[in-house]
Amino acid sequence: MTGPALSNPSPSPTDRSRVRRTRERGFYDRATILRILDCGLHCHVGFLADGHPFVIPTMYWHDENHLYFHGSRASRMMRAAEGRSVCVTVTHFDGLVLARSAFHHSANYRSVSIFGTAEPIDEAGRAVQLEHLMERLFPGRWRQLRPVRRKELKATRVLRVALSEASAKIRTGPPIEDPKDSGWPAWAGVVAFQTIALPPQSDVHVKAGCAAPAFALPQG
Amino acid sequence: MTGPALSNPSPSPTDRSRVRRTRERGFYDRATILRILDCGLHCHVGFLADGHPFVIPTMYWHDENHLYFHGSRASRMMRAAEGRSVCVTVTHFDGLVLARSAFHHSANYRSVSIFGTAEPIDEAGRAVQLEHLMERLFPGRWRQLRPVRRKELKATRVLRVALSEASAKIRTGPPIEDPKDSGWPAWAGVVAFQTIALPPQSDVHVKAGCAAPAFALPQG
Repeated sequence: MTGPALSNPSPSPTDRSRVRRTRERGFYDRATILRILDCGLHCHVGFLADGHPFVIPTMYWHDENHLYFHGSRASRMMRAAEGRSVCVTVTHFDGLVLARSAFHHSANYRSVSIFGTAEPIDEAGRAVQLEHLMERLFPGRWRQLRPVRRKELKATRVLRVALSEASAKIRTGPPIEDPKDSGWPAWAGVVAFQTIALPPQSDVHVKAGCAAPAFALPQG
Repeated sequence: MTGPALSNPSPSPTDRSRVRRTRERGFYDRATILRILDCGLHCHVGFLADGHPFVIPTMYWHDENHLYFHGSRASRMMRAAEGRSVCVTVTHFDGLVLARSAFHHSANYRSVSIFGTAEPIDEAGRAVQLEHLMERLFPGRWRQLRPVRRKELKATRVLRVALSEASAKIRTGPPIEDPKDSGWPAWAGVVAFQTIALPPQSDVHVKAGCAAPAFALPQG
């Protein structure tokens, strides 16, 4: 979903989106942000309700300018987030980094945090966006499904957040530790993680001739 | 880390922790919450800074009564969260659920959201807690490492949140859809995910005789 060149590929961070600690891990260019979003399926949406922070996991999809998420019209998240300030974070937890001192242990990860106002999408736009969600995961599936009903669209909310105020944070590679610790007799290195999709499990009612869609988790 | 019976195994949800939509997916008993926390390594911490929500990924560990996370004394998260209301969410994204209508597609997941005040841990307590973090991941490793220095403990902050106001949300199993859609000619079922640890990659300085620790991701 990265596509053609963007008009504003390297916006300056705002006070909110700037990575303060370990600044060398912070990136603000759209290409890096899109590459991390391309590899994920779910995000964590942070919003306020009754003055308290909430963090709720949900699926997302995106284009070059916005991240989208959806939910029931009745959900607390969709009601509390609409028109309000949110932070949406996507994280790939790539591995554990083991050093010879506890202090220099770390994790490898790629994350994006997006700050902005959650804007509602109207009913016509929702039909388009839900098709994008489906087609992103399973190209061609949308037209095989029982068509969406108007009452289903009415029961669903879609919110979007602009990617204009966002930061990526990335750590890769081996441990970084005090040079004088390098002779300490403990193992050091990286234990990397990988998430895989298992073979599809068919529902009991699946008809002959209805094959499972090809699916592979997007890899970074 | 579940261990012996708890004095308050099934607290009532508060307004904040109650799962409102799809109530049958909400659980509030400590055993269910601990089982989900046992299977994870990282969480998303939601907090407020300058009136805006932030969501930051970080590692966590836990005992029967608290979830703990740590960070640099200089980090925005640790400064903004200390003594304030936070929401910490741990999510296992277990798979995609495909129905014969777009509307009834879903995801299988297990998540816990904990609401409370982030309480600081003093210096002596931090040494104990950082050992717990390490020993949870790599039993026996703590005593092999170059000992922690006082200035390292001073540069690190540990915060904890009580598990007393928390909810789990769980979805498992096949799609649930309109019975009249079951004859629609589209595939339906589940694509499950699994995260695995790859073989350890040694740092260039590893000495002969220093073997990589055994490590397997905790599975649910």
